[in-house]
Amino acid sequence: MNVLADFDPVLPESYQSSEFVMLGNLTPDVQMRVIDQMAKRPKLIAMDTMNFWMNIAMERLLEVLKRIDCLIINDEEARQLSGERSLVKASEKILQMGPKYLVIKKGEHGALLFYEGQIFFAPALPLAEVFDPTGAGDTFAGGFIGFLAKSGDLSFENMKRAVIFGSAMASFCVEKFGIERLAELTNIDVKQRVAKFVDLVNFDAQL
Amino acid sequence: MNVLADFDPVLPESYQSSEFVMLGNLTPDVQMRVIDQMAKRPKLIAMDTMNFWMNIAMERLLEVLKRIDCLIINDEEARQLSGERSLVKASEKILQMGPKYLVIKKGEHGALLFYEGQIFFAPALPLAEVFDPTGAGDTFAGGFIGFLAKSGDLSFENMKRAVIFGSAMASFCVEKFGIERLAELTNIDVKQRVAKFVDLVNFDAQL
Repeated sequence: MNVLADFDPVLPESYQSSEFVMLGNLTPDVQMRVIDQMAKRPKLIAMDTMNFWMNIAMERLLEVLKRIDCLIINDEEARQLSGERSLVKASEKILQMGPKYLVIKKGEHGALLFYEGQIFFAPALPLAEVFDPTGAGDTFAGGFIGFLAKSGDLSFENMKRAVIFGSAMASFCVEKFGIERLAELTNIDVKQRVAKFVDLVNFDAQL
Repeated sequence: MNVLADFDPVLPESYQSSEFVMLGNLTPDVQMRVIDQMAKRPKLIAMDTMNFWMNIAMERLLEVLKRIDCLIINDEEARQLSGERSLVKASEKILQMGPKYLVIKKGEHGALLFYEGQIFFAPALPLAEVFDPTGAGDTFAGGFIGFLAKSGDLSFENMKRAVIFGSAMASFCVEKFGIERLAELTNIDVKQRVAKFVDLVNFDAQL
């Protein structure tokens, strides 16, 4: 028994009908208990997890995976979960475990979104300085699900935008300590940052 | 004295007026001797190099850098050449050493093109299988300079296309052994592959 295993979250009634649920990186048992308390099936359940749970609670983790729509993990976690080195092969295996969408985060190398045989790649913004990387992954997840909750659109096109939006938010997170940079952000800051992501990969393909 | 230091390439006369020159990864002395034999200043001199030359011939390498237009190196080489961990800071220092354009290759993580304060990012194609990575960097360089030589256009927009084209060629190289895959390629194969790069990063930014 440990603190995490004893933690039994009770969802306030007003949360139980949420349409968008983000399961943070806790023990699969806690994640399952949150799902069980939802009054109706949310539109989207997204989930973060990590190697640690794969090592000590893989069976339970696999049960939770069957009940979610979108898994958000990093490249090493994707490799461990699937047993595949290639992220393309890893995605194919993981998408058979339950989720319809898979986001693989590669830190400074960007993020991949996999959905029904399609792949979208979102770059990370090349930064002159990374002041404090703490919380970048959670900021990505928050920006991603927040964008989806606001727009209510689960098309692949909109999921791509959500990945870009999450990446933009994460790029702010690392610029200052803790949530300092996020706390001072304006909508204009965010729009300008998203525009940078567009510029970064934009080219006219006329060959 | 070693074999490389003794190698004294003699350019055939028909090569001496080439408008596009790609200096492969040899000793800076050999690269300099090639530049010296050009009858007139080429439109573009691109160059590859590596850590080894930085370790044993840095001074001479810096002299060559002053005479070229575009340096193509990988991320670790960019860090060693500049002494900067951040690739953005590294690019700023390297672009002060001579070249106007800098391409930093990140292998399976894509490539960055730096030019006058602007950054373009070309993804690598996520592949299910990498059969043989040998020659991917040289294939990238060949595709890049070949594209520029054919189009004759050195605008930033066209340099972006050249980076995508080089990345597409490199993605073929790794699919089979040696040059097997490259030798059998058709123009349609290449166009279809470039289209995959477009799809991979394409999204509608309407937030």
